[in-house]
Amino acid sequence: MTKKDLVEELKPLFYPRSVAIVGASKSLVKIGTMTLMSIVVGGFEGGIYPVNRKGGRILGKKAYSDFKSLPDDADLLIVCVPAVAVPEVLQDGIDAGIGAAVIISSGFGEVGAEGKKLEDEVVKIARDGGIRFVGPNCMGICSSPVKLHALMNMMIPKPGGVSFVSQSGTLGTVNMLVASNHGIGFNKFVSSGNEADLRAEDLLEYFAKDEDTELCLSFIEGLREGRRFFNVSKEATTRKPFIMLKAGATEQGAKAANSHTGSLAGSYQINSAALRQAGVLMATTGTEMLELLKAFSLLPLPDGKRVGIVTPGGGAGVLAADACGKVGLEVPTLSKGLIDEMNEYLPPFWSHGNPVDITASGGIGGSGGADFSALTDSLDILMRSGEVDSAICMGVSFSDMMDSVLDNFPDNFKNMLGPMTAAIAPIEKKFNDKLVEIKEKYGKPIVLMGVHESVPKSALELEKNGIILYSEPEIAAYALSKMAWYSDYLKANNGGK
Amino acid sequence: MTKKDLVEELKPLFYPRSVAIVGASKSLVKIGTMTLMSIVVGGFEGGIYPVNRKGGRILGKKAYSDFKSLPDDADLLIVCVPAVAVPEVLQDGIDAGIGAAVIISSGFGEVGAEGKKLEDEVVKIARDGGIRFVGPNCMGICSSPVKLHALMNMMIPKPGGVSFVSQSGTLGTVNMLVASNHGIGFNKFVSSGNEADLRAEDLLEYFAKDEDTELCLSFIEGLREGRRFFNVSKEATTRKPFIMLKAGATEQGAKAANSHTGSLAGSYQINSAALRQAGVLMATTGTEMLELLKAFSLLPLPDGKRVGIVTPGGGAGVLAADACGKVGLEVPTLSKGLIDEMNEYLPPFWSHGNPVDITASGGIGGSGGADFSALTDSLDILMRSGEVDSAICMGVSFSDMMDSVLDNFPDNFKNMLGPMTAAIAPIEKKFNDKLVEIKEKYGKPIVLMGVHESVPKSALELEKNGIILYSEPEIAAYALSKMAWYSDYLKANNGGK
Repeated sequence: MTKKDLVEELKPLFYPRSVAIVGASKSLVKIGTMTLMSIVVGGFEGGIYPVNRKGGRILGKKAYSDFKSLPDDADLLIVCVPAVAVPEVLQDGIDAGIGAAVIISSGFGEVGAEGKKLEDEVVKIARDGGIRFVGPNCMGICSSPVKLHALMNMMIPKPGGVSFVSQSGTLGTVNMLVASNHGIGFNKFVSSGNEADLRAEDLLEYFAKDEDTELCLSFIEGLREGRRFFNVSKEATTRKPFIMLKAGATEQGAKAANSHTGSLAGSYQINSAALRQAGVLMATTGTEMLELLKAFSLLPLPDGKRVGIVTPGGGAGVLAADACGKVGLEVPTLSKGLIDEMNEYLPPFWSHGNPVDITASGGIGGSGGADFSALTDSLDILMRSGEVDSAICMGVSFSDMMDSVLDNFPDNFKNMLGPMTAAIAPIEKKFNDKLVEIKEKYGKPIVLMGVHESVPKSALELEKNGIILYSEPEIAAYALSKMAWYSDYLKANNGGK
Repeated sequence: MTKKDLVEELKPLFYPRSVAIVGASKSLVKIGTMTLMSIVVGGFEGGIYPVNRKGGRILGKKAYSDFKSLPDDADLLIVCVPAVAVPEVLQDGIDAGIGAAVIISSGFGEVGAEGKKLEDEVVKIARDGGIRFVGPNCMGICSSPVKLHALMNMMIPKPGGVSFVSQSGTLGTVNMLVASNHGIGFNKFVSSGNEADLRAEDLLEYFAKDEDTELCLSFIEGLREGRRFFNVSKEATTRKPFIMLKAGATEQGAKAANSHTGSLAGSYQINSAALRQAGVLMATTGTEMLELLKAFSLLPLPDGKRVGIVTPGGGAGVLAADACGKVGLEVPTLSKGLIDEMNEYLPPFWSHGNPVDITASGGIGGSGGADFSALTDSLDILMRSGEVDSAICMGVSFSDMMDSVLDNFPDNFKNMLGPMTAAIAPIEKKFNDKLVEIKEKYGKPIVLMGVHESVPKSALELEKNGIILYSEPEIAAYALSKMAWYSDYLKANNGGK
């Protein structure tokens, strides 16, 4: 099968004209009904055709009593009936002209030999009928370009450029939801389930070729075709970033993965080192995956590993430098000329080096400017100098923190301090605006490190403008190091793209 | 100086009868005024005596125009005046009979040679006057047993058993606030600043001996007396857990730390490996520090490294097993007898091993019990078996997640699904109650892993009952591994305590 074929072949899966769904009913707690609701709420603009022998209306949609009465444009079939009924439903769908299917139903290979036989039967029907399918035993799919969201747990993501294939339905959908809340948009999502037909390898190949996909993402436990996955990955990474969360990295995890995906006969653990050589951005935890997604979705790619650190306090600077050191980033010594230039803007006791520590006197009420201008001035000079490729800067979100402190204060003190803390918010806003300006001017990534666990309201606004606030310097450094690494990879393999 | 002396000597610092403060005025934005407000709001029950030559009242407290008119019981002096005025103020305080001081004022060793001279002068006055002091250039101290909270940024913590010395005022206070919000209580806190007199070594020695302190915590960038710190640490760890966040662990960080704490002539980097040998729980990030604090404050100490994993989905089980593998925990194979016992309670397709994966059929609506009883049954059997020392279990907080999903749904669907999601909450409550019951019954740590970034409301309730919900399995495994390690350390060095 040539590559052009796959893109063409999966068109009814990701760009269907209309969707037929079997297994939805008047009962809300059924997986089929919840999937249908997800399709309806998601805003799919083609026809939505529940198939239910009782007819009538389900969630406001006309239900068709059998496949024969389906309109002609139904080209994607979603199956949520009990396992034993799946072969017949699939055959009926094929006979009615559907071009692809998503089989959400469970009770196949994952439950033993009997189920495996049923699964083989389903595969044969699909092959004979000339269609491809996702599943069985999966949570569904999404395709934002046509607003199709067929997910049994209804976790509809924000639309965008990320396409995601996940071998775990729960972890996949939940992480997609969390990422969505951070403003990351998804283009396509597939919970690949038992992968009786379409495998992660196929979907990755499709995403790599798909013009609507800007970034590939996968959660993988095991693969049948490791060599092919490697080749497809290598192809993908020269076109767009490919982030992969791989479970089973340790002996303990591999043992557990083997038990979980044991039904995938012949599955084997993939070689992380080889994938890294193929340019894959390997995450080892859900947090790492999310942070890479944010970084690659929101930040410009840095040109190299040199990081400038800007802070109004030495402790945070040391932690940030440590964090850079741990992941192989450089915290370069600044040139004499650059230090001289900074002397003109900074309070006398600044660190005279990198980290650029403007000391507490650079903050509110300090000699360095009541508006944190010493922080943004030094950041501007650093970025202009060409001596660093990216910057980690201490975030300024004291008003949120003070609000949380004052929460526990008696009213009289709260009232006394209210105006003071209220006065800080516009100063912080100005600081954030200035950061965005600097980022636009030099096109280099700027990330902020917070000192407070919770994400202040201002952070989401900053993220929209391409600046990320990380809760601690380790995560900021991790994200920058992976970006610098990918930038190098592209240069080596793509002539800089 | 013998050890008994130090405890006696620091009594006026941590258990003062009354507090005099210089540098507070009618102006709210002054550090002295904010520190005074922190003392007042904190509820200190001894006398609070502002010293201000204008007299009158400040924040409702009578201000004394000079030291001579101070009541006799003022034994702790808080100094917030400009650096040049500090020597005279300290001398006046000593003449008036104060027994200890906290010098918050900055402009000393940290700003160069001139400041260092002033600092030396202050040290001489204190030595000659026979008192000890904290600072200068610090953010203040807390002592919960007497409700004393003298902090310039007013970040008053929850009271409890943790005593904390931090060489960074900002990182120290902010982390204390974040930990407080997680229900961790603090006994004493010292922002040690320039450590002109009292050093981290001294304060750690005090905390180790202090009967009110249950757990020692420190944030350290550099030390003058590394050998003494090591000895004091070794002494502390046989009595209570000692958690340390050490900055400057890498070459880059050490360079930055040297610049930050350069004023500490003779400071040098401490040897992490040696401290680990002394039983110190070394954290390398703020998150690790917070997670260790939570674990050691809230969980029972496990007897060893064997972890049982219980999950309703294979993907999470693999990630948890991986996480255990990475930090050296064991995920032991279960005995034939234990598997047979579990067969009686679990759905047929469970994993028959560790991780105990009850599969999705064990969840709501599944054959394993509509109330997640398959999860709690297997956890109970595991804990009783003696084959594991602790457990990581998948948390159940779907109602919070569904609420966030429904937020984006149109009202008609929201109303349709509301009763369904509302029905889940009491089931989750029952599940959580059962977990607490199991934890009480066997006295072994149980931690939950979440699949959702945000902490559900139910988590804080669980924490109060000694069960922690971690946002991902890596953090759960990290915390358990450190507890198992400390448990081993105590056995080897204390005869099991």
